Amino acid sequence: MLAVDLIRKKRDGKRLTRSELEFLLRGYVEGAIPDYQMSAWSMAVYFQGMEPEEITDLTLLMAESGDTIDLSGINGVKVDKHSTGGVADTTTLLVVPLVASCGVPVAKMSGRGLGHTGGTVDKLESIPGYQVELEPRRFIEQVNTIGACLVGQTGELAPADKLLYALRDVTATVESIPLIASSIMSKKIAAGADAFVLDVKTGAGAFMKTERDAIALAETMVRIGKLADRSVSAVISDMNQPLGSAIGNALEVKEAISHLRGERFDRLTELSLELASEMLLLAGHSDDKAVARDLLESKLKNREALQTFGKLIEAQGGDARVIEDPSLLPQAEYVVDVKAPIAGYVHTVEPLMLGEIAMELGAGRVTKDTVIDLAVGLEVKRKVGDSVKTGETLVTIHANDKDKLAVAQQQVLAAFTIGDSEAPGLPLIYRRITTKDV
Amino acid sequence: MLAVDLIRKKRDGKRLTRSELEFLLRGYVEGAIPDYQMSAWSMAVYFQGMEPEEITDLTLLMAESGDTIDLSGINGVKVDKHSTGGVADTTTLLVVPLVASCGVPVAKMSGRGLGHTGGTVDKLESIPGYQVELEPRRFIEQVNTIGACLVGQTGELAPADKLLYALRDVTATVESIPLIASSIMSKKIAAGADAFVLDVKTGAGAFMKTERDAIALAETMVRIGKLADRSVSAVISDMNQPLGSAIGNALEVKEAISHLRGERFDRLTELSLELASEMLLLAGHSDDKAVARDLLESKLKNREALQTFGKLIEAQGGDARVIEDPSLLPQAEYVVDVKAPIAGYVHTVEPLMLGEIAMELGAGRVTKDTVIDLAVGLEVKRKVGDSVKTGETLVTIHANDKDKLAVAQQQVLAAFTIGDSEAPGLPLIYRRITTKDV
Repeated sequence: MLAVDLIRKKRDGKRLTRSELEFLLRGYVEGAIPDYQMSAWSMAVYFQGMEPEEITDLTLLMAESGDTIDLSGINGVKVDKHSTGGVADTTTLLVVPLVASCGVPVAKMSGRGLGHTGGTVDKLESIPGYQVELEPRRFIEQVNTIGACLVGQTGELAPADKLLYALRDVTATVESIPLIASSIMSKKIAAGADAFVLDVKTGAGAFMKTERDAIALAETMVRIGKLADRSVSAVISDMNQPLGSAIGNALEVKEAISHLRGERFDRLTELSLELASEMLLLAGHSDDKAVARDLLESKLKNREALQTFGKLIEAQGGDARVIEDPSLLPQAEYVVDVKAPIAGYVHTVEPLMLGEIAMELGAGRVTKDTVIDLAVGLEVKRKVGDSVKTGETLVTIHANDKDKLAVAQQQVLAAFTIGDSEAPGLPLIYRRITTKDV
Repeated sequence: MLAVDLIRKKRDGKRLTRSELEFLLRGYVEGAIPDYQMSAWSMAVYFQGMEPEEITDLTLLMAESGDTIDLSGINGVKVDKHSTGGVADTTTLLVVPLVASCGVPVAKMSGRGLGHTGGTVDKLESIPGYQVELEPRRFIEQVNTIGACLVGQTGELAPADKLLYALRDVTATVESIPLIASSIMSKKIAAGADAFVLDVKTGAGAFMKTERDAIALAETMVRIGKLADRSVSAVISDMNQPLGSAIGNALEVKEAISHLRGERFDRLTELSLELASEMLLLAGHSDDKAVARDLLESKLKNREALQTFGKLIEAQGGDARVIEDPSLLPQAEYVVDVKAPIAGYVHTVEPLMLGEIAMELGAGRVTKDTVIDLAVGLEVKRKVGDSVKTGETLVTIHANDKDKLAVAQQQVLAAFTIGDSEAPGLPLIYRRITTKDV
């Protein structure tokens, strides 16, 4: 077998077999197949696509290329949740306690953030004492005891994907749905869950700019699940504006707590309940979504989800008093409101722009080695469709550096357009795709 | 400027500017842009193509990437000839003396062969004493004195093309017409001629298997010439069977001499006259192809072309007596006829198969470092459409090694199909494409 022949085969639109893909991937990881052949193959995939079985083979081969987590020590169906990445999206911090409080075990591993997208692990580290690094033996025990864990990634999951993704990033081959889908699913499968709920974002602030692409990606991932014997449901949700209001680590934890305390009910709550309902369905806890949804809402109202979050924090060494007193979280030195210069209706709130301003304040990583400032970020006070009066606060900036504060103050208004005419609010959920749909 | 953005631009079907291509190529040659980005770009070009101006920019940038030959010391229009490569194609050895004998200067630089395709320089080295390596100063003087030279390549022409071609070869991106055309034309332009006649082969033994692809390649190269202010004519000629009869170095020189002596007139003569006529037109020697052709035929008949070949050999230190006594050329130890096992009509003569058998006998290079045996090879005695009787010779094998002879004897019949029904002969010239056609 020669790599050049496999590149040619894909270039000519043919399906590679599992053993051919294995030859490519194993050779690549071992260094026998050079970057320049994998990048040519990736570009051929960009143009020719891959067949469902081929994508599934690739996914499983990448999943098997490194460590895999064995969750069999946890009773019941283990359901994981994944988001393709958005701004002010802290659904994980709501979904995990919500689902766990219904008695469904959740062993959630999360990553750190890079760029404007926040990482759940970074957010959790803003809780004093919280330990994100737990060995599988420890966190499995914790899930069996209190029903949930929220930890950082353990081991080297899907190193073949890691290598390939870095190569795709510098060869303009990232934007290929089969390659995106297999990249996401390989890491999820290696992390050991039986079922997955995928939150596929679409819109100006998402990787998938169009609903069509988001649907194609969701369908591809659900199909991989079907062929690989994992249950998968996908929700296509809006990312044309920030999902919640907080962008920044401690601010997002605070926002999550506020929701779990029942103090707010908004788009973030709505999407969290939707994703949590899907998880209950996949876990076999319920076969009726409305029932699942009602149960979850009751766990919010009676604060059981909040209590579960508290137990989770405590189990992982954190100061659980934060759920009653969020002022224990890191606070920024400067807290400054930016006000509406004119009255009108909010037509757009650019999520990427706000995400990048928050990153520049120190909330996100510009490079892998950036040290995050857990206290800083933005609170976005208005959504598309809202009316606003002159002088009302659009954004509250939390900063620890005067220069960075000044820059953010200068830039933040550009993320908004305010018009005379009424503006409709944005939809939140565009579509739901399950195994039955593919 | 970032290479990844230029790859993306091409991937999305847009034209790269000259400065963008310069950034890519210069960066690649200097090592700043890695193989894996150039291979991804090449695959993007494979799928998206290039615009004529873009191909021309690429061609000129590659031509300028290394040494260029200055032929301005030779009076008149310098016309070069190039073949895309075929089997039993020794037209250069006919065309150069033919054109020079008409008073048009020919400074012909040729390469060595690799694989089954013979290199003119290798063939010439079978003439005792013949020196292929001459400095430009020396060969220009020779052209001004006797009207022609036939030398090996001097300097490092188009190193960017050399690098890129090696990469394309291992990434399944060779088969891209813009890249093939710019590769050929960059080397030709660097070699300094004002005008070019291109022999674009098509058929089973050619790189361009279909007439459609051959036309597309020819048109692309003629268009490059037009945009780069070089006159170019292309002839699409048949390579569904060997062009002449000899495959192998000394055998091909012998065959050329035999034609120049007027002892044979066949498809090789016909194509040589066609290409030589085009060269006279481009040189401005004639504006009527029929007149040019008549003149060339007269140079064959009166043996002036043969005498010019003799002078050329002498000027380059070779034993010019070979034109009267070809037995002075290297002779193989074993000369064995392979005979027709049945009577009938010749339906096919596979050129690639015969080229590879000759290569295995030692006539060609399996790798760059193979030492060629100048004496060995094949003489193919029958063409498609010929009738043949049982026991008549199809091929004469010239070998210096008994084992290799035995292998060739076993294999050579497989290159022929002989059927009961009459078979039509193959066309020789499919089309002519000049600057006016593009």
